[in-house]
Amino acid sequence: LIQNFSFQPELMNDILDGQTRDVKRKVRQLLKDPVFSHEIIRDKEIQREKIMRQLKFLATQGLGSILYPTKYGGDDDPLKYAAVFEMIALYDLSLVVKFGVQFGLFGGSVHRLGTEAHHEKYLADIGNLDLTGCFAMTETDHGSNVKGLETTAVYLHDLRSIEVHSPTPGSAKEYIGNAIHAKLAVVFAQLYVSGINQGVHAVIVPVRDREGNLLPGVFIEDNGYKMGLNGVDNGIIRFDHVRVPRRNLLNQYGDINDEGAYVSPIENPSKRFFTMLGSLVAGRICVGLGAVAVSRKALTIAIRYALSRRQFSAGKDKPETLLMDYPTHQRRLLLRLSKTYAYGFGLKECANRYAKAIKEGSDLRYIETLAAGLKAAASWHATDTAQECREACGGKGYLSENALPDLKADSDIFTTFEGDNTVLLQLVAKSLLSDFRQEFHDEGYRAVMKFLAERLATTMMELNPVVTRRTDLDHLIDPDFQLHAFRYRYRRLLYTVGQRMQKYLRKRINPYDAFLRCQNHMVELAKAFTDYWVLKRFVGQVVKCDQPEVKQALKNMCDLYALSTIEEHKGWYLEQDYMQGSKTKAIRRVVNKLCQDIKVDARAYVDAFDIPEELLNAEILQSD
Amino acid sequence: LIQNFSFQPELMNDILDGQTRDVKRKVRQLLKDPVFSHEIIRDKEIQREKIMRQLKFLATQGLGSILYPTKYGGDDDPLKYAAVFEMIALYDLSLVVKFGVQFGLFGGSVHRLGTEAHHEKYLADIGNLDLTGCFAMTETDHGSNVKGLETTAVYLHDLRSIEVHSPTPGSAKEYIGNAIHAKLAVVFAQLYVSGINQGVHAVIVPVRDREGNLLPGVFIEDNGYKMGLNGVDNGIIRFDHVRVPRRNLLNQYGDINDEGAYVSPIENPSKRFFTMLGSLVAGRICVGLGAVAVSRKALTIAIRYALSRRQFSAGKDKPETLLMDYPTHQRRLLLRLSKTYAYGFGLKECANRYAKAIKEGSDLRYIETLAAGLKAAASWHATDTAQECREACGGKGYLSENALPDLKADSDIFTTFEGDNTVLLQLVAKSLLSDFRQEFHDEGYRAVMKFLAERLATTMMELNPVVTRRTDLDHLIDPDFQLHAFRYRYRRLLYTVGQRMQKYLRKRINPYDAFLRCQNHMVELAKAFTDYWVLKRFVGQVVKCDQPEVKQALKNMCDLYALSTIEEHKGWYLEQDYMQGSKTKAIRRVVNKLCQDIKVDARAYVDAFDIPEELLNAEILQSD
Repeated sequence: LIQNFSFQPELMNDILDGQTRDVKRKVRQLLKDPVFSHEIIRDKEIQREKIMRQLKFLATQGLGSILYPTKYGGDDDPLKYAAVFEMIALYDLSLVVKFGVQFGLFGGSVHRLGTEAHHEKYLADIGNLDLTGCFAMTETDHGSNVKGLETTAVYLHDLRSIEVHSPTPGSAKEYIGNAIHAKLAVVFAQLYVSGINQGVHAVIVPVRDREGNLLPGVFIEDNGYKMGLNGVDNGIIRFDHVRVPRRNLLNQYGDINDEGAYVSPIENPSKRFFTMLGSLVAGRICVGLGAVAVSRKALTIAIRYALSRRQFSAGKDKPETLLMDYPTHQRRLLLRLSKTYAYGFGLKECANRYAKAIKEGSDLRYIETLAAGLKAAASWHATDTAQECREACGGKGYLSENALPDLKADSDIFTTFEGDNTVLLQLVAKSLLSDFRQEFHDEGYRAVMKFLAERLATTMMELNPVVTRRTDLDHLIDPDFQLHAFRYRYRRLLYTVGQRMQKYLRKRINPYDAFLRCQNHMVELAKAFTDYWVLKRFVGQVVKCDQPEVKQALKNMCDLYALSTIEEHKGWYLEQDYMQGSKTKAIRRVVNKLCQDIKVDARAYVDAFDIPEELLNAEILQSD
Repeated sequence: LIQNFSFQPELMNDILDGQTRDVKRKVRQLLKDPVFSHEIIRDKEIQREKIMRQLKFLATQGLGSILYPTKYGGDDDPLKYAAVFEMIALYDLSLVVKFGVQFGLFGGSVHRLGTEAHHEKYLADIGNLDLTGCFAMTETDHGSNVKGLETTAVYLHDLRSIEVHSPTPGSAKEYIGNAIHAKLAVVFAQLYVSGINQGVHAVIVPVRDREGNLLPGVFIEDNGYKMGLNGVDNGIIRFDHVRVPRRNLLNQYGDINDEGAYVSPIENPSKRFFTMLGSLVAGRICVGLGAVAVSRKALTIAIRYALSRRQFSAGKDKPETLLMDYPTHQRRLLLRLSKTYAYGFGLKECANRYAKAIKEGSDLRYIETLAAGLKAAASWHATDTAQECREACGGKGYLSENALPDLKADSDIFTTFEGDNTVLLQLVAKSLLSDFRQEFHDEGYRAVMKFLAERLATTMMELNPVVTRRTDLDHLIDPDFQLHAFRYRYRRLLYTVGQRMQKYLRKRINPYDAFLRCQNHMVELAKAFTDYWVLKRFVGQVVKCDQPEVKQALKNMCDLYALSTIEEHKGWYLEQDYMQGSKTKAIRRVVNKLCQDIKVDARAYVDAFDIPEELLNAEILQSD
């Protein structure tokens, strides 16, 4: 097979894999081990056993403790953890979720919310999987609203014990991963000390003995079959007045002293709550990376199929047309490919910033906002992409032998877990609005004037008919134009939501109801912010690439991402008079032209993801 | 539970169920029989046995032969068949697909493509399921392009036999439903008589003996596990020079006479081919109805959940907010509810017209165009709706106990089978273009002038700034405005595709390549036509409703469908200067307001679908 592409996939892969390239290559090799061979397993018990065996294998390779301090056998390296997570996601999503629950959520909360004594006691065993545990936060009645959790943890000073209890059926912990295999649970509950509710805290509660029997007062049942991820043992956990020693409180941000009084380094309860949750932001970044892995795998299958499958011809003796040569097919697959590139760069940068912030102990708030926006964008994109790739492969895409059915079913919950996407986008918008308010508050009237002046300048430029009607290619592929359009959408939505909020608040509508009324508007704002942030990263990747062929390939893909995103929102841009119809039509033509150009290199673009054939596991690719 | 709605769901159900109301109610009752109890079955063999048992039950109730002439135990009633199909789809999609394969595709092709002798010999046994069979059209290498099928059927006059053969691996019949249970196959193959290829014809080929052993020269293998529909036995069938008697040719549209010559009542081979395929249009209508059933069921679950689930509150002592009160949730569910109503009315009318045309023996071409457009629209809508409903139910939506996982997995292939949606929309567009050309051809220059004059009038009216800027409610909910906007999109796209095609043809680009270049444009045209046709039906339903409360409820839903569809395409309308930004913004506000109004009656709108609790089979509805 002679492949004559405009760039070398290997060089593109260097950029995609980034600084964790070496780890990723090692894990790709590791995943070719026979323990990871594929078979269709329908029975959840058998599937769970297999996943547990594979998890053990990963732990024996030292991949379980990456996040933890070196003195407990770890690497203290969140970036390496994210790289390993991303690679496992290319293989099997049940395994990566189980991996994330055990080493990330469970181990990570012991690490981040606990202190030295907890680390000493648990981390080594967690990392080598001698101690399995679960992260018991979500309850049947409260998932998104974590502040509203009903499980109680009441401190009994005379016994120096904490009593954990599920007061109502709806307060049972649900969908808890590892529930059937866990010995320990990190339970999130309302902590009461001397009768006062100190808010949600995490307590370590043993749930099974060494032999695996449930401990007294603990009730666990299986969540049963799910749409996918049946290799993960999700269950429901209920506590009936279970007592644990005071030291089981994970006491990094809130503690009970020897006198039985509650003490915390963070005075403000709301700030304390968000600091606790914020330490778990790594999980969202990983889900985002996993979602990008799903999109990459689905597109690799569908694009390679489209490059070998033919259907219909111009006449009896003419060859049939390759699916990839159909304009509809190009739009279906290549626009999604450009988003997959874009979100990959966005999440890579987000992971880098997170690792840096953790190392430096700096504020995580902005990274939380990014992670929430990116997790939502990447997971919705994965759901959409896996669906489109299934359809693009026709009947073949519906057969289990071609990987897409599992990919779709397993990844479907990514839009819900680690934060429902719609709820996350509201957090993003609220955070942006509070920054906006901050600007005004810190600098007072001068800031308002500055902002309005900036806005005015922007608006005037946009209403300049020369710009709103400019349709030449040079202008449309100019990153300054693209970034300006993305930024304008973000800033304009921020400004208008801000205005609406102020109007409601002036009318004495309470902030909760005011937010509720602006909900659709806020979701749009959060999406616009995330799109803008992602485009900046993509443009940055193009700028810093010093290999000319790869640089051009990245530039084309970046243009496709930028212009197809503008096209998606053309209704908004036209409504705002930011563009004239002649311009949006010109953008459509450039998008179609970019599809034509990129399709020639389509195979190289997916080969650059470097997904081993063993991991793709699709029969239809055997002959492509 | 006191339900205080603006209308009675029962009265709305009368309209939705339409003239086949009585049959539908009977089948709803029938499906409560214990034979249809629900259980989660993971093993495909066990699931297939169960589905086969249920199919037999339906046959013993006389539901297998509805389509066939009365003298073979049937009702000769395609409308009744469609009604039964729709109801079974509410219960289980494996069962309805198996039902459709056996009685619709297999039995239907014997009925429509065969003649008296075939009916006499087979139809009664097919209807009571004593004779199982399959419809062997699709091949591994050719699904959409049926004309390109490679299986051969060579007539050997000395033996008065037809030899059926699969010449290449890619010519094996694939995804064939009933492949594992079938005794007979209706095989579509290139018919050669005296060495001349007469195009694709259907031949009855026995594949198994009474004991179920494969006959010589027939090779069948299981397609294995699929994303869903694992209760249906799809398989791959290959023929190695299998001979059957001449009389096994289904000879309604093409026959071999006693002298061994090919004869046909339809001279033009292309017309003959499309006439044969056209007789199968009923299948597409049924898939559309099945897709509407999926949307109705998914929305019933998600809307009822949204009316009982609460999350987040304005403060500690305030009740949490109902999901249905979130503006984002209203848009997610109610816009899709309006489309579900719309497509339901569209398909009901399409089925009525089909039944009438079959009875009168009139031309089916326009109905084929409608059925193709509606099947594509309804099946994409079902995929999208099932997905959104899953997400709207959060973690609960991911559990098998809540029906949505199966609904999603089973219905996913609806966008592909009975014609890939993208391919179908191209057929729709081609048919519209040929009507358009027809107009010109029949009436010559006068027709062109008439068309252009009409267009000019339309355009001038639209460019009237009073109309493009009118934002008052009376105008926006005026069906004349809505229909005009939908029609304008359809006619304008038709005109511009026509212009492009003419330009390419003048440049001597061959029609195949010209169509290819216009592909995205044609798909948009087909969608616009279907949307317009559907809105006309919906508006008609409102007009003819004589019960004032129900009429108002229908009117609100119709407005939501019309205005949210315009909103979806606002980019296009703004690009065309059909509307100004002030108008599209006003439309957004009316859509939000309609959501607020409709949510109060949301429960009544889904209760009007009248899906028995037994069929919904969702644990989360136990306590709502």
